[in-house]
Amino acid sequence: MNAPLVKLQKEILETGLDAILISSISNIIFLTNYSGFSRDEREAYLLITKNKQYILTDGRYTDDVRKLIKDFELIEISSKLSAIEALNKLKAKYNLKKVGIEENDLKVNEHKALKKYLKNTQHFNNMHQIRSIKSDAEISKIEKACKLGDETFSFILKKIKSGISEKEIANEIEFFIKQHGGEISFSPIVAFGKNSAVPHHVPDNSRLIQGNIVLLDFGVKLNNYCSDMTRTVFFGKPTTEQKKMYEVVLKSQQKAIDLLMTNHSASKIDNVAREYIIAKGYPSIPHSLGHGIGIDVHELPHISPNTKDVLREGMVFSIEPGIYLPNLGGVRIEDLVILEKNGPRLLTHSPKNLIEI
Amino acid sequence: MNAPLVKLQKEILETGLDAILISSISNIIFLTNYSGFSRDEREAYLLITKNKQYILTDGRYTDDVRKLIKDFELIEISSKLSAIEALNKLKAKYNLKKVGIEENDLKVNEHKALKKYLKNTQHFNNMHQIRSIKSDAEISKIEKACKLGDETFSFILKKIKSGISEKEIANEIEFFIKQHGGEISFSPIVAFGKNSAVPHHVPDNSRLIQGNIVLLDFGVKLNNYCSDMTRTVFFGKPTTEQKKMYEVVLKSQQKAIDLLMTNHSASKIDNVAREYIIAKGYPSIPHSLGHGIGIDVHELPHISPNTKDVLREGMVFSIEPGIYLPNLGGVRIEDLVILEKNGPRLLTHSPKNLIEI
Repeated sequence: MNAPLVKLQKEILETGLDAILISSISNIIFLTNYSGFSRDEREAYLLITKNKQYILTDGRYTDDVRKLIKDFELIEISSKLSAIEALNKLKAKYNLKKVGIEENDLKVNEHKALKKYLKNTQHFNNMHQIRSIKSDAEISKIEKACKLGDETFSFILKKIKSGISEKEIANEIEFFIKQHGGEISFSPIVAFGKNSAVPHHVPDNSRLIQGNIVLLDFGVKLNNYCSDMTRTVFFGKPTTEQKKMYEVVLKSQQKAIDLLMTNHSASKIDNVAREYIIAKGYPSIPHSLGHGIGIDVHELPHISPNTKDVLREGMVFSIEPGIYLPNLGGVRIEDLVILEKNGPRLLTHSPKNLIEI
Repeated sequence: MNAPLVKLQKEILETGLDAILISSISNIIFLTNYSGFSRDEREAYLLITKNKQYILTDGRYTDDVRKLIKDFELIEISSKLSAIEALNKLKAKYNLKKVGIEENDLKVNEHKALKKYLKNTQHFNNMHQIRSIKSDAEISKIEKACKLGDETFSFILKKIKSGISEKEIANEIEFFIKQHGGEISFSPIVAFGKNSAVPHHVPDNSRLIQGNIVLLDFGVKLNNYCSDMTRTVFFGKPTTEQKKMYEVVLKSQQKAIDLLMTNHSASKIDNVAREYIIAKGYPSIPHSLGHGIGIDVHELPHISPNTKDVLREGMVFSIEPGIYLPNLGGVRIEDLVILEKNGPRLLTHSPKNLIEI
């Protein structure tokens, strides 16, 4: 049986629950490796008891489930058997009393319907922790996504020319990723000139002119796993001030990566990068230094000033310091890192020398 | 003040509520015309009392809200003032006792936090009804989305050639739409040959060969409003049987559109198209004949066998009959229609003569 299920069933025993009802799409993908269900409508639930697993979905998915989902018994829901009724039958069969539910995913109306049959539910929130440590198979998938991300970066450098718009570059990134069998893990950020001073700038019709900073932040989703990378390049010769910003951000990132060799406190990692930037006379980073990544583009751990998260072997996360000067521009450099026994290893490999186009 | 707000405040009075808390992104877009908030994370709420409207969101959106959102007073939420605390202050200010919430959108954990302050909440579900009748401004936006959809169809016909894959065609559709300033309203369906017999086929690596049916179902989102259209064309000379299927589907659609002149029962409209297909010896349509559309690609009304929905002036909906023969292939033809005083008017204009490529 798959390792996450084993972990999860151990959790069920430890938390004194009789079963867990999984509704969130990312957790369903994690446990089944199947990503065919809609993110917008509720099309499936998993019910996991101490020693048995069920998937509840409708007839449209019967073939896929039988072919692609191992370890789960299918219960087909329909106009004659709602998901809630099916759960009620399982409740009777296994004498389920206390069931964990995902209160941060389940809607109020779904919960109301469920409560008619199951009075005793309790928030189950441990999936995030379980998912934060990646298996070898997951790491390999993230590496493949990163590889396509690196190829996308090489491709897009060739598209950067005078007069092209941010939106056009963003579309080219997306098109390239899709033509190579991937999806985007989030809408690409492309920011020219002073737009690069806005950390989450939405690409618009701004057109590239000489002297612009070009900030590119994008990710690939491949086999359900995400990559995420930011590079900042210069269209024309960078000014002395731009060069300095770039060098400070790059060095700040390196300081965080170096500290990972000896220190696994996520707040300390955030701190070393942040303090370096401040010491060089720049404003503090207006966002976290990094975030875990996997099926979702933002997962545990948090790498931020006040987090209590501890970085562990098998965690994959971003390290992404930045300097943002309103009306001037910004520089961000982001890589994905896996923490291994011997220390951190980079998963993104696009060049970080200062690139002038 | 904007007309939907006037309607909504009338509803508040009629339903005996003191206020409504709007959380769903589509309803926020509808009421504010602003679409910058995430669909994945909760970033904003609207609180609408009988005579006053508030938008609660965080500092990232302050500039946008002040610039782009009329009629709503901004309450900035932060680490010092959560959305729930802000709502509690408004509750005290307006002596709110009974508040409508969107139980099909709000999460269980959000509801739990809210209930600490607001014991008396009630499901408010009338937004779907309000949104089903489109204003002139909304119709004009849908028409523009349909126009770009028609242009996309002309463009994509030129891309259909031997050896291209379904995924490649789907990506070309998406790229074209985005390069022309739109978004996709849903992931395009591209189905070759027997894949066209699966109504919601997901484009795969199947490559086009002579004799394939090519089913194309895609939509544009422009200025927050969606289009949706399906065309089925033939790569190579269609067989007599394929021609007959095409003609039956086309005539079935025409029968539904014709009946709209005199009959506004949605189930009757579904029935006339469905019965014609059955009378010609084909299986019944395995889906509804149509659906309303607007900010979401699926809205009210339902046009299905057992619906009680009545079609009214100002409603915009699809009419999309289809014949699907497993292992042979399928034909679907879909247009958007607005019901006007004088009858139905088509909003999609791509050709429907049998196209052979």
